[in-house]
Amino acid sequence: MKRKFLGIDIGGTNLRGKIISEDGKPLAERKTCSDAHMGISRLIENLSSFIKEFPCEEVSAIGIGIPGTIDRGDGMLIQAPNIANTKNFPFTKALIEKIGATTPIFIENDAACAALGEYGAGAGKGSNSMIMITLGTGFGGGIILDGKLWSGEDGFAGEVGHMTINPLGPRCACGANGCVETYVSQVAIKRIVCEYPELCKKLAGTEESSIPKRLAELAHKRDESAIEIWNNFGTNLGVGISILVNVLDIKTVVVGGGLSGSWQLFIDKTIEEVEKRSLGAHARGLQIKKAFLGDDAGVLGACYVAKSGLEKNC
Amino acid sequence: MKRKFLGIDIGGTNLRGKIISEDGKPLAERKTCSDAHMGISRLIENLSSFIKEFPCEEVSAIGIGIPGTIDRGDGMLIQAPNIANTKNFPFTKALIEKIGATTPIFIENDAACAALGEYGAGAGKGSNSMIMITLGTGFGGGIILDGKLWSGEDGFAGEVGHMTINPLGPRCACGANGCVETYVSQVAIKRIVCEYPELCKKLAGTEESSIPKRLAELAHKRDESAIEIWNNFGTNLGVGISILVNVLDIKTVVVGGGLSGSWQLFIDKTIEEVEKRSLGAHARGLQIKKAFLGDDAGVLGACYVAKSGLEKNC
Repeated sequence: MKRKFLGIDIGGTNLRGKIISEDGKPLAERKTCSDAHMGISRLIENLSSFIKEFPCEEVSAIGIGIPGTIDRGDGMLIQAPNIANTKNFPFTKALIEKIGATTPIFIENDAACAALGEYGAGAGKGSNSMIMITLGTGFGGGIILDGKLWSGEDGFAGEVGHMTINPLGPRCACGANGCVETYVSQVAIKRIVCEYPELCKKLAGTEESSIPKRLAELAHKRDESAIEIWNNFGTNLGVGISILVNVLDIKTVVVGGGLSGSWQLFIDKTIEEVEKRSLGAHARGLQIKKAFLGDDAGVLGACYVAKSGLEKNC
Repeated sequence: MKRKFLGIDIGGTNLRGKIISEDGKPLAERKTCSDAHMGISRLIENLSSFIKEFPCEEVSAIGIGIPGTIDRGDGMLIQAPNIANTKNFPFTKALIEKIGATTPIFIENDAACAALGEYGAGAGKGSNSMIMITLGTGFGGGIILDGKLWSGEDGFAGEVGHMTINPLGPRCACGANGCVETYVSQVAIKRIVCEYPELCKKLAGTEESSIPKRLAELAHKRDESAIEIWNNFGTNLGVGISILVNVLDIKTVVVGGGLSGSWQLFIDKTIEEVEKRSLGAHARGLQIKKAFLGDDAGVLGACYVAKSGLEKNC
């Protein structure tokens, strides 16, 4: 019998789940609320009920993408800013106890899952190595080298949003200054908009998550400040990508996340900057591609995590 | 019979050669002039004579470290700023024809060789993954992941000197602005010294390669400008290291090259900056170590290149 794998992506708002067959065919799909803001106990309960909705007796392994820092080996959730009460929480153990099942569970960081998803079935399909950048609230990433996720020595690699691109730049949530995330993210856009009094007035009262969309509408209507902000956004993204390309010499860069929706407003400046800052040989053949799986990337990546986790364990 | 490997490091001034046994024991060592500035034909001739001085009939493979961009597969030297007339030169083919021997020859970038050397027998010995930074005329690097050199998709990885740390910073030799090399290298020190009129006067007439040493002497004599320059050097090195650590989550960073001789003058600022800019988990257990093999790292690394090249081919 062919094996099946269940992947789950934990988002701030939703839980998404998918079962795929051995050869990657989608077999079932579901979505529910995560209630992640209500803390880890509630999340584990929701997850447990959610998993039971799937035909789990047929599933060989479960992969779960978590928005936080994890320890794969011990199944620990070390830190997750968007899930209350979660420092050093034995995630896998708690979930197995709750479910009362013996299906192996493997956890992975959610940005890494998104990278694995786009690599396996999205914009990175067919490439050998790939850098994934996720432009959302922050600036996340995942690095795939020769077909494998590079997790680093302690499992924390891919924090590309915290590359310094200006030591004296704006303060970042991480405590440092001038991380690329302070220029290229939803949080950054919110701050930058306020540096333009006219724009700031126009966007007063807009929810943070809706500001990029409104800013894109204004740019399409030829608002000069909005155009300038997107241009600078593209340029700074290009600076970040050039660093990664110079260090790693990887030819495929996939950019996803909500803000990648404004692709046409920033990508020309991004390419221009990458070409200026990458050594000639590095820029040769480089492709910067828009992710195209959307929210599906994370859940699909979680399915791959289940599959590769099982293969490693055998 | 146990195998032996010959490694050669091509420097701007010298050719260094070493034979090691299968288990890494040094068996023979020699040095001669490279005359690299006189062009590639002369270099190939010198190399050929140099190789013949060794007991080559007993050697299983030759590894050569080259100061330039190479294509390992084809044995091509793509570009080498310090060897005249060398664009797309069939290095391995030309050398084999000149020697008239059948010993397999493998080429590698010289900074990568230095990284392999320090990893195998120097400051990185015992680590799993390692970042090597070589502070000389420029800011070079090599990245070792899980015991293997990461060369990138086209073989050009490790250009860590061209990470942008200030998009509006000084012009770099690569054409971009604000690469870390424009702050942390011999070339950078020469420029920066001239921003201090008093120092500039004191060091007038000093050869570029001797400026860092003179600047270190002045710092030891409590010259405030000299101390400030080394402090900033350390801080900017820290910015560069933090980028690599955030992206790759590697716990061992080895810093070598001529300028690492002034270790005590900059390392405190480097550590301070890395701690400030690396995500908490990344900085945990991070070790920044001084390379200790000196010029021996490159030639030893070339021996390892010979060994691993042979193993890959078998």
